[in-house]
Amino acid sequence: MRKRLQIGILGLGVVGTGVVEIVNQERKKIKQKTGVDLLITKALVRPGEDKSALAAAQGFQLVYDSKDITEDPDIDVVVEVMGKIHPAYEFITEALEQGKHVVTANKDLLAQKGTQLVQTAIENHVSLYYEASVAGGIPILRVLANSFVADEITEVLGIINGTTNYMLTQMVEQQMTYEDALAQAQALGFAESNPKNDVDGIDAAYKTVILTRFAYGLDIAIDDFVVKGIRGIDLEDIALAQSLGYEVKLIGLTKKVGEGIFAEVAPALVPKHHPLASIRNEFNGVFVRSRGIGQSMYYGPGAGSLPTATSVVTDLAVIAENQSDNKPAPQFCTYETKKAFANPNDVSYGYFIALALADEQSLWPEIQKLAEAYGIVYRVVADEQGSESRRLVLLTEAINEVQKHQFVTSVNQLEASNVSQIMKVMEE
Amino acid sequence: MRKRLQIGILGLGVVGTGVVEIVNQERKKIKQKTGVDLLITKALVRPGEDKSALAAAQGFQLVYDSKDITEDPDIDVVVEVMGKIHPAYEFITEALEQGKHVVTANKDLLAQKGTQLVQTAIENHVSLYYEASVAGGIPILRVLANSFVADEITEVLGIINGTTNYMLTQMVEQQMTYEDALAQAQALGFAESNPKNDVDGIDAAYKTVILTRFAYGLDIAIDDFVVKGIRGIDLEDIALAQSLGYEVKLIGLTKKVGEGIFAEVAPALVPKHHPLASIRNEFNGVFVRSRGIGQSMYYGPGAGSLPTATSVVTDLAVIAENQSDNKPAPQFCTYETKKAFANPNDVSYGYFIALALADEQSLWPEIQKLAEAYGIVYRVVADEQGSESRRLVLLTEAINEVQKHQFVTSVNQLEASNVSQIMKVMEE
Ligand SMILES: NC(=O)c1ccc[n+]([C@@H]2O[C@H](COP(=O)([O-])OP(=O)(O)OC[C@H]3O[C@@H](n4cnc5c(N)ncnc54)[C@H](OP(=O)(O)O)[C@@H]3O)[C@@H](O)[C@H]2O)c1
Ligand SMILES: NC(=O)c1ccc[n+]([C@@H]2O[C@H](COP(=O)([O-])OP(=O)(O)OC[C@H]3O[C@@H](n4cnc5c(N)ncnc54)[C@H](OP(=O)(O)O)[C@@H]3O)[C@@H](O)[C@H]2O)c1
Repeated sequence: MRKRLQIGILGLGVVGTGVVEIVNQERKKIKQKTGVDLLITKALVRPGEDKSALAAAQGFQLVYDSKDITEDPDIDVVVEVMGKIHPAYEFITEALEQGKHVVTANKDLLAQKGTQLVQTAIENHVSLYYEASVAGGIPILRVLANSFVADEITEVLGIINGTTNYMLTQMVEQQMTYEDALAQAQALGFAESNPKNDVDGIDAAYKTVILTRFAYGLDIAIDDFVVKGIRGIDLEDIALAQSLGYEVKLIGLTKKVGEGIFAEVAPALVPKHHPLASIRNEFNGVFVRSRGIGQSMYYGPGAGSLPTATSVVTDLAVIAENQSDNKPAPQFCTYETKKAFANPNDVSYGYFIALALADEQSLWPEIQKLAEAYGIVYRVVADEQGSESRRLVLLTEAINEVQKHQFVTSVNQLEASNVSQIMKVMEE
Repeated sequence: MRKRLQIGILGLGVVGTGVVEIVNQERKKIKQKTGVDLLITKALVRPGEDKSALAAAQGFQLVYDSKDITEDPDIDVVVEVMGKIHPAYEFITEALEQGKHVVTANKDLLAQKGTQLVQTAIENHVSLYYEASVAGGIPILRVLANSFVADEITEVLGIINGTTNYMLTQMVEQQMTYEDALAQAQALGFAESNPKNDVDGIDAAYKTVILTRFAYGLDIAIDDFVVKGIRGIDLEDIALAQSLGYEVKLIGLTKKVGEGIFAEVAPALVPKHHPLASIRNEFNGVFVRSRGIGQSMYYGPGAGSLPTATSVVTDLAVIAENQSDNKPAPQFCTYETKKAFANPNDVSYGYFIALALADEQSLWPEIQKLAEAYGIVYRVVADEQGSESRRLVLLTEAINEVQKHQFVTSVNQLEASNVSQIMKVMEE
């Protein structure tokens, strides 16, 4: 039984310094529970970075070459909190191959190279944990791995990007424009200076990939599904949705349909009484529909130095606990099923469809005929006749992906009409 | 490594039959994950009960004497889902002493005899799990035990009684009276025919005791704290709270103040934007404030056959997993601290205080003086002059338990005035 776990950290940024703080604060409690002392011995920084005060105060050594950590025989666990794919992938792989457990918060990496990294961990009999990679401080991955063994998840809906949820909340509550909301999110440090990954849904898509693995034991790639962000959402759509009793939220969705999976990231209408509707600002929430429990939701901060670092250190404590048990290193998610995609004919949702029609009275009857042809039942919830154009919004009953696609394609093919917005409507 | 876990069930009621169904449904998946096959071999029923069809279909034996289960050397785990304190306490104790793991959903028992039962489990090197005992389908106890090791919980606020939350929701949304809401909860099967435990806050208090153990490692008794239910709440108070931006919810509260704990069950005002405010009808939610994560909330069904049974079977799967690891039986909650209560001077909240004054104009100035004497800062949010009496409602700034107590006592001592309602106001 090892009584001490020596830790090397790769990267001392927002999360890395939080990890140092939390280990320092919670070390005694963790030792009480696990019998193991967590000890940070080294941290990798850039040559220019001055972290010497922190290192001196906490008694660890600063290093400038990753090998000083990944090849150090005394280090038991490597914490990767540098971000990006390269060289994080290489550093983690090396650490695993050197028989070290790894904890990371890197969702980009886990979504894109997760399969390989998990394989490397298994081959080297070490653990790879990454609770912080989805929904920062919410212990969602551990809950999915541990508390749904006796259940069958059918649908996961996540508000898993704090930046866009903050923006949408501000747009609704403060009548702010998209641009102002983005500027404010940046000023508050939620959004990166290059906000593309957030506003285009890519960050949410990475997390949806990871959630799919934990919910269904299935590895999908980000290219396997449609990813839409919140660019192009306008206040008019949001206001209309509100008046109909919905909030507009960027949702990462992963659903089991038959033996296959349907995933998507896109703005969607969430009924005001749905638990996800009340998640405001930078908070995250993951809603799970399952056969046994029914509906459950897990809510908390999606990011931030301390919440994210707390998840990282919880992973360290779990490793410590396993260490002291002297049993083989467990894997984070052991559930595995064959990759299969849902039949689009079987995936059905209601839709909010906004149509922009040039000012020709003949267009709407034609569109009505298209809807009928594709078996789409709807009601018109807005019909605004402008001087140059007409805006119509339909709320449809549940239709499948094929019907939806055919209808949108046909409308867009008509001259002078197009679907300006289409959003799924979630069930209460 | 045992490849099979033989299970005996005590009681085949709502939860017990759910356990049979879930084990049957999820057995394959659990075997895949844990390597262990769950097998129900016996169930204790009453002599009169006819469960022979279920027993035959599922291939287990019905027994009428608990010893046929607790003393059966082939049985590894006993599931207690009979309810009540006696004879459940004796049956569980016997099972533990016979070296059997125990899973139970019995909050009454855990709150009142938890300390002894945990001790018996430890002495006999077996596990005692009871995830289902708090908030039915929500995996809250496992989350507190596993995902807050690297964190420090400062406050837990729970909507943990579905019956009363259903009633309060209906009273607000349907303008229903207390009596009608209760009758409807009973008709829907949420409330027992004797609803005392629900409406008087006792059920919530049992769960608050268990939450306190998991949040702070501390055993308190139900007599250690104030327990108030929703009897006597009137629609007028709820409507006023609503107009001020609050929902009225029955809250089980357990807070760390200094080195001590403050616990209470009582109706409280929850700001509309607080995550607990959106928990409607029979659903439960547990909100956790902590140093690292900050705010998190866990939402789901608080009761029901399948949700509750799913939690029971998750406990069984955890036992199966430990079994296959061949390691010593772990305990559900290992966190332990010395029992200590918070200094009432240090426990502070804002309050909603409704005063009923007989129609004497001199009373209000006297009450104002009392407030000033106790250092209570408030604003008057309602002042209704009836023909016979005057109703005043104050919203105070944060005051401590001592100030509150002194003020309420003094007001009630004045002739012809009394505090008709006092509720804590939760922070956003
Ligand atoms: N921040 C959050 O709230 C949050 C939440 C969930 C997950 N995460 C994930 O956590 C990881 C870290 O995020 P963060 O917010 O802490 O980022 P950050 O503040 O940019 O910190 C990363 C640190 O690592 C350093 N670094 C990068 N490559 C390095 C190298 N090759 N050698 C030495 N140092 C290197 C960076 O230095 P330079 O700045 O000089 O490159 C920076 O100091 C990311 O994967 C992120 O996605 C973050
Ligand atoms: N129902 C829920 O949603 C829920 C949620 C969370 C926790 N729980 C807890 O789960 C436990 C079971 O609840 P439940 O709703 O399933 O209750 P239930 O429907 O009343 O089931 C209990 C069953 O056990 C039987 N029983 C009681 N004592 C017995 C004895 N000495 N010998 C044989 N059979 C006996 C009862 O028979 P009789 O009816 O003849 O007494 C009844 O069939 C309770 O501790 C409850 O607090 C329930």
